[in-house]
This record gives sequence, structure tokens and C-alpha cells, in this order.
Amino acid sequence: MKTLKVGMLGAGTVGSQIARLLLDNKADLASRAGAELELVKVAVKNIKTKRNSIASTLLTDDATSVVNDPDIDLIIEVMGGISPAKELILAALKNGKSVVTANKALLAKDGATLYEAAAKANVDLYYEAAVAGAIPILRPLRESLVGDHVIRIMGIVNGTTNYILTKMDEEGTAFKDALKQAQDLGFAEADPTADVEGIDAADKAAILAGLAFHSRVTDKDVYREGISKITAADVKVAKAMEMVIKLLAITELTDAGEISVRVHPALISRNHPLAAVRESFNAVFVEAKSAGQMMFYGRGAGGEPTASAVLGDLVAVARHRVSGGVGPKESDYASLSIAAIGATKTRYLIRLNVADKPGVLESVAHVFAAHSVSIQTVRQSGAGDKAELIVMTHHSSESALSATVKDLSKLSAVSDVASVLRVEGAI
Amino acid sequence: MKTLKVGMLGAGTVGSQIARLLLDNKADLASRAGAELELVKVAVKNIKTKRNSIASTLLTDDATSVVNDPDIDLIIEVMGGISPAKELILAALKNGKSVVTANKALLAKDGATLYEAAAKANVDLYYEAAVAGAIPILRPLRESLVGDHVIRIMGIVNGTTNYILTKMDEEGTAFKDALKQAQDLGFAEADPTADVEGIDAADKAAILAGLAFHSRVTDKDVYREGISKITAADVKVAKAMEMVIKLLAITELTDAGEISVRVHPALISRNHPLAAVRESFNAVFVEAKSAGQMMFYGRGAGGEPTASAVLGDLVAVARHRVSGGVGPKESDYASLSIAAIGATKTRYLIRLNVADKPGVLESVAHVFAAHSVSIQTVRQSGAGDKAELIVMTHHSSESALSATVKDLSKLSAVSDVASVLRVEGAI
Ligand SMILES: NC(=O)c1ccc[n+]([C@@H]2O[C@H](COP(=O)([O-])OP(=O)(O)OC[C@H]3O[C@@H](n4cnc5c(N)ncnc54)[C@H](OP(=O)(O)O)[C@@H]3O)[C@@H](O)[C@H]2O)c1
Ligand SMILES: NC(=O)c1ccc[n+]([C@@H]2O[C@H](COP(=O)([O-])OP(=O)(O)OC[C@H]3O[C@@H](n4cnc5c(N)ncnc54)[C@H](OP(=O)(O)O)[C@@H]3O)[C@@H](O)[C@H]2O)c1
Repeated sequence: MKTLKVGMLGAGTVGSQIARLLLDNKADLASRAGAELELVKVAVKNIKTKRNSIASTLLTDDATSVVNDPDIDLIIEVMGGISPAKELILAALKNGKSVVTANKALLAKDGATLYEAAAKANVDLYYEAAVAGAIPILRPLRESLVGDHVIRIMGIVNGTTNYILTKMDEEGTAFKDALKQAQDLGFAEADPTADVEGIDAADKAAILAGLAFHSRVTDKDVYREGISKITAADVKVAKAMEMVIKLLAITELTDAGEISVRVHPALISRNHPLAAVRESFNAVFVEAKSAGQMMFYGRGAGGEPTASAVLGDLVAVARHRVSGGVGPKESDYASLSIAAIGATKTRYLIRLNVADKPGVLESVAHVFAAHSVSIQTVRQSGAGDKAELIVMTHHSSESALSATVKDLSKLSAVSDVASVLRVEGAI
Repeated sequence: MKTLKVGMLGAGTVGSQIARLLLDNKADLASRAGAELELVKVAVKNIKTKRNSIASTLLTDDATSVVNDPDIDLIIEVMGGISPAKELILAALKNGKSVVTANKALLAKDGATLYEAAAKANVDLYYEAAVAGAIPILRPLRESLVGDHVIRIMGIVNGTTNYILTKMDEEGTAFKDALKQAQDLGFAEADPTADVEGIDAADKAAILAGLAFHSRVTDKDVYREGISKITAADVKVAKAMEMVIKLLAITELTDAGEISVRVHPALISRNHPLAAVRESFNAVFVEAKSAGQMMFYGRGAGGEPTASAVLGDLVAVARHRVSGGVGPKESDYASLSIAAIGATKTRYLIRLNVADKPGVLESVAHVFAAHSVSIQTVRQSGAGDKAELIVMTHHSSESALSATVKDLSKLSAVSDVASVLRVEGAI
């Protein structure tokens, strides 16, 4: 049996598990790939650090030597970051090596350059682990749904924020306390910005949008709001209305045929399959023209789950190397443009603190009507001379809604607009 | 661009949708397959029937002429049934044509013969649509999880029974009435046996078990119980215990390293992702060693969803035809044997009608202990001089449990064993 030589860039949380699984499953992987997969070189920052499952003789701190080694057939990139990861991947591709990467940040920022380099060199660039960790989602999108048309994707693609929102929902915890818990448990980093503000989710949204709509989409195209402003009161209202708040990465086609791609917290019905995605789990909900609704659920992160996804890709690219040929290339034939966030249409839940006196509802309703935002339900709950109005709208554009909210806050009967939340998923 | 000629066997619920989508998405499919896909011949029983999207000149009632046509490159089999579907597929493979089929019954009965013929002819045999319709589950199992080890699969793979159980759960409907509703809505056939008694689910269980554990598994290997004995009382008890009853297709490895493969109703916690799978939706829950828990959710049947899955396969085999090479072949290297149902271990919920007098619980507990079946919880609810005991066990073998139930029914204090239900999914 032939041997394919594998070089790896990085041996941290993910890389160390890949190295272990390559050893533990040697025979299995060989029979499935059609070739032995031998890890021959591993680039790290500090070669002094002792690593389980990696002989110290394999380690190097000269990553360039790995991608330029003519004996190496396949490269795994799990070092992360933009530079030097990008230059290293490009060099590997140029040298005719297929590459498997988990680097969502790089793919979201500049995937196009990498895809082009792979196509030019006629080698594979696979990246299943970059979105939703262990969940096979990119392969189904690229291959199983290839004869179908995606209409919309809604994903819970960040485990940390889903953990926080689950605690807030199930235990009534305040945002700050839930974040602290997530940090204590190692789910959230000391600086939680990338998770909490939706930056990580936006990278994944860009990758999903590009695949779903055969267009180039980068992180800059993604409209983004995090969860740090979600309050216990919001969660309570959601509960009362049989809904739950999730941080969703959404991409869909607008009426004008443009790509809407955004990350923000949203209310969804408790009956929606995404509502049952708890704790740090991830899930991607896909609506396709023929296949209908689908959901892919699983572990979005963690060394071993992510390593499993990398190995799935590694076997695929190895099989191609053995049999000749490559997998499906980037598909960007549609070249759709990105919709402005103002053009996005969704439903909204608006909480208003108002004076409890006659005529308030009328003046509030007037403002909605003036902006052609149609109201689905209104709920009023009074307490003394103050009352809370909870308004759920029908689908309306972001821009019409913003204008409505602006005018509402100017009404003398409205003491403040307590919150504005999007409502997603059909009811 | 090259043209690949496609022959189709059958043009019913699924086939008619395939024909339509092949026309509607012609350009798209060509760009993704790397070749134009032209439907050139369609075998049906009655060529007089008018078919949308299929020119009558393409129709033939001589199916053999389709698989023997030297101009045809790829065959789609959606006629169903064992014979002549099997002979036709074998002829097509022998003639060097790759085949895409949705025929779960045939694959479960005699997949091995087909897989061997495909391997011998070095062509593809793809069958994503055979299990859980539109849900990409076989490809993730065969390709994404190829570097991992499946531990257990639990699937809701029959839409009709899930619809019935959903009605029973959510509306308290009796089994017979829920079945009638399903029939009126066209979900269930006039003769519902194949669905209700788990025969259809068992076919899918066999296919999943074979793929998951790299062994040959047929429909005869599957232990099977249907849902016709589930009562409104069972559903009520499940609800009270925050659980729900689902018809599950389960395959897992026993402690002895054998394959347990079975279809039966089971209680699962309302917190389990499968519990949220409502109505006629399907879902397959997979536990893998490295990837952890995953779930794949979507439409398990219907002409258009199933056609979407067939087209995904068709593009894959077309790509292989264009580039040379074939996809992963059958993997049966493990050749594990099938465990007897008695060796299966799970938890149980047993409802007993007992006399409400001192010492009953003691004598019941004694029977469990005598068979080394350990009790997790007991709930007693009295009404006059009668009481109901609800016993939940820890994991125990089917054989120990059956012996326990037999002895329980002999106890004078036990008037009857009202029901015995398996409990699945970790809590
Ligand atoms: N962790 C997850 O759950 C997860 C999930 C999905 C995707 N990913 C992605 O997978 C990638 C790796 O993540 P990770 O969590 O494994 O990261 P990590 O634990 O920080 O490991 C990074 C590894 O890369 C090495 N490295 C960093 N810069 C280097 C350089 N300039 N030259 C040579 N080696 C360098 C480090 O060396 P030292 O060991 O010497 O410091 C370390 O071994 C990232 O792109 C991440 O987004 C991670
Ligand atoms: N329907 C679903 O939702 C679904 C989902 C997953 C998998 N599947 C599988 O897909 C396959 C097809 O299902 P279906 O629902 O489309 O079946 P169907 O509606 O009964 O259609 C069967 C087709 O095959 C033709 N046919 C039957 N026997 C034939 C013969 N001996 N020679 C030539 N043509 C013959 C019939 O011709 P006429 O039109 O002239 O009668 C008809 O066009 C089955 O294996 C089924 O298990 C179906």
C-alpha cells in the first residue's frame, strides 16, 4: 500500500488530537483512504514543549520548511490566525499539496485567494472543521444539496453564546453571571469579545453564505450584533410568549435576489428545531427548495470533535490523491451581491414602557401605520399608572422598523423603548 | 461540455420529480457535474399514462432495454420492489453504468450482491435517498465520519409513525384515531402494516447498521416491534415523567462487540434532541467516539425531497464519470456478528397494577433483585384498594427483564403488567 506523507501546522487543542487519532486509527484510516497516512512533520511555535502523541523529532519551528518539503503530500493547517497561516497555505497549494484547514477566520477574510490558488494548482482545499466543528455541514451543502437550491440558513454556530443564552433561559441567570459561569467552565475566553459580539459567528456566516449561494462573501459583508445587551427581562418576555432567544447566523435571499447575511440575537418559537439546541451545542438549520427543512446538530468545538472533522477531510483528499482527481471546487458562478441590512425583512418584538392612560395604544399604532409596519399582536400589562406594551410585527424591513422605533421614542406617552428584538423562523 | 446520458427506471412519486428537476435545473446541474445530464429513456409499467416533464417519446415499458442501452451512462432506479429492480440494477452495473437508487427494501434484503457487483464493475452505487429521504445522512456516515468510530445510532426514520405518535402525545389522540388521521392526510397507506409494524424502519436500520459498523446487515437481522400496542395511558405516563414515546431504529455495539440492531417504540427524555422531532419529520441521532453527539433532521419522504437526494447522488456519480475514479466502496472489513436481542441492554419502564396493601412493593422489589435488574425509581399512585406502580430500571439485558416480567405477573399482589417500555438515550 502507498504511503502519503502528512505535514501539520500547529499542534494545539485541535492539532494534538489529530496527531493522536492518526496514530490510534492508523489501520482504519489507511483502509478508508487507500493509502497509509504518515505524519512526518509538525510546525509549532515552541519546540521545547512536550507533546503527547508527537515524537519530538517531528517538531519544527520552521513552518515554511513543512510546506516546502517535496516529500510531503498533504498539509493540515491548525495553527489559526491570518498570517503566517495564509502564506503557508498558499505556498503548500502552489507546491501541489492538498490542504485541510479549520481556519474560519482566514477563510472568512480571504477565502477567495485560497480557493483560486487551489483551483490553479488543481489540488484540494477542504475545511469542514471551520464551520460548526464536528458537524458535517459543508459537505452536505457542497455535495448532497448540489442538485437543489438553498433558500435560507439559520445557524447556532457559537457554543459559548448558546451556553450563556441557555443558562439565561433555563435558570433566569443575568447575562454577566452566565458569562462568568461559561468562563469558569472554560467555554468562554478571558476576553469573550469574539464570541459575545458575534465575530466568530460572523466568520462562519460568511462561509455558509458563500457556499449556499455560490458567491463570494467575506466577514465584512456580515451585519453583526452580539448578545451583551440581552437582559433577563427580554428572556422572560420570550418565555411568556413560548419563544427562546438564540444568537443566529442567518443567510437568505432577499426579494431582490441579493444575499442577506447577518448575525444577531433573535426570538424563535419553542417549537422550532433550533429551540431545542441547548448548552454549547451547535446546529445549522437549512431550508432548500426541494429538500425542504433540514437541521444538522452537534459539537461545534473542542479538540477531539474538531479533529474528527479534519480527519474526514484528510481521508477525502487522500483518496483523491490516490485515485487522481480532486473534489468539487469553489462554486461562485452566481456572484450575487450583498443586501444592505435596511433591506432585510423579518418580524420584530418591541417592548415599550408607556403611561397607562387612554389613547396610548392609538398613538403607538399610528406610528407603526405611518411607516407601513403592520402589527400582528399587541399585549399590554399595567402596573399603577405605568404599563408595558409588547408589540409583535409582521414582516417588515429593517429600515422601516428603525424609523418606527425612532418615532415611537419621541411620543410623549412612551417613556422608553425597552427593547427591540428580531423574530425568526416561520410560525 | 460532455453530455452524460441518463436512464431512469420508474416515474412515480419520486421519478416524476426527478425528471422535472433535471429539466428545471439543467444549467446548474451541468456546471456542478462537469457534464450535461440528459434524461434519454424512462421505463414505466404503463406507457399510456401521461407524465408531466417527460416527453412520451422517452417512455418504454421494456425496462431491460434501458439498462442494456450502450449509449446510457447512468441509471436511476426509482421503481421500487425487489424484482425486477434487482436484476435490472445488476445488469446496469455489469454493463459499466453507475447506479443511483432509493430502494431501501432491496438494499436491506440483498445490498451485498449489489455492492459486490458495483465493486467488480468499478462503478458507483449510491443510495442516499434510501434512508431518511432528503436528509444527508449516508454521505456523512460514509465520508465525513470516516476518521471516526460510530458508537450508536438512533433514528426516527418513519414519518407515518412519528406523525401518529406526535398526535398521541400532543393531542392525547388514541392510536386508532391518529392512524385514521394520518391515512386521511395521505401520510399512511390504506394498509399501514409496513409503517406501523416497523418494517420500513427496519430496512433503514439494517442499512444504517451496515454502514456504521462496516459489516453486512440485512432486514432479517433487525429485531422489530411496532407501535400498534402503544396506548393513550402509555403516552400519559411518558408525559408525566417528562418523556415522549418515539419509534426508534437503533443500532449500537454491545459490550461483546456485536451489533445490536432493532426497531421498537421507546421513551426518551423531552430534553433529548430527538424528542423535538415532530409530525412526519425524520431525524438520525449519531454518537461517534471523537465527534460526540450529532443529529441530522429533515424530510424523510415525499417526491420532491427524495428527488433532491437522488440528484445529489447523481451529480456525484456523474463527476466521477467525468474525472475517472469512483466514490468510496462498500466497507465491510469489520464483519461483526449480530447480537441476540436478549443480549441488548437498555433501561425499562414497567407499569404494574397492584393491590394497595402493605408488602406489595417489597415483593415486587424482590423479583427485580432476584434477576439482578436494578431499580432506578419507583412511583406509586393509589386509587381505592388498587394502585399503580411505575418502575424505572437501570440498564439491564432484555433476557433478564423478560424473566423479571414473567415472574412479576405471577405475583398474587400484581393484577397485571400493564406495559413494558424501553427507555433510550442518556439522561
Ligand atoms: N479549538 C477548537 O475547538 C476549534 C474548533 C474549530 C476550529 N478551530 C480552529 O482550529 C485552529 C486551531 O485552533 P486551536 O484551538 O487548536 O489553537 P491553539 O490551541 O492555540 O494551537 C495553535 C497551534 O499552532 C501553533 N502555532 C501558532 N502560531 C504558530 C507559528 N507562527 N508557527 C508555528 N506554529 C504556530 C502553536 O504552537 P505552540 O503549541 O508551540 O504554541 C499551537 O501548537 C484555529 O484556526 C481555530 O479557529 C478550533
Ligand atoms: N415516495 C417516497 O417518499 C420515497 C421516499 C424514499 C424512498 N422511496 C423509494 O423510491 C422508490 C420509488 O418510490 P415511489 O414512491 O416513486 O413509487 P411509485 O410512485 O409507486 O412509482 C413507481 C414507478 O415505477 C414504475 N414501475 C413499477 N414497476 C415497474 C416495472 N416492473 N417495470 C417498469 N416500471 C415499473 C411505475 O410505473 P407506472 O407509473 O406506469 O405505474 C411507476 O412509475 C421505492 O423504492 C421507494 O421505496 C420513496
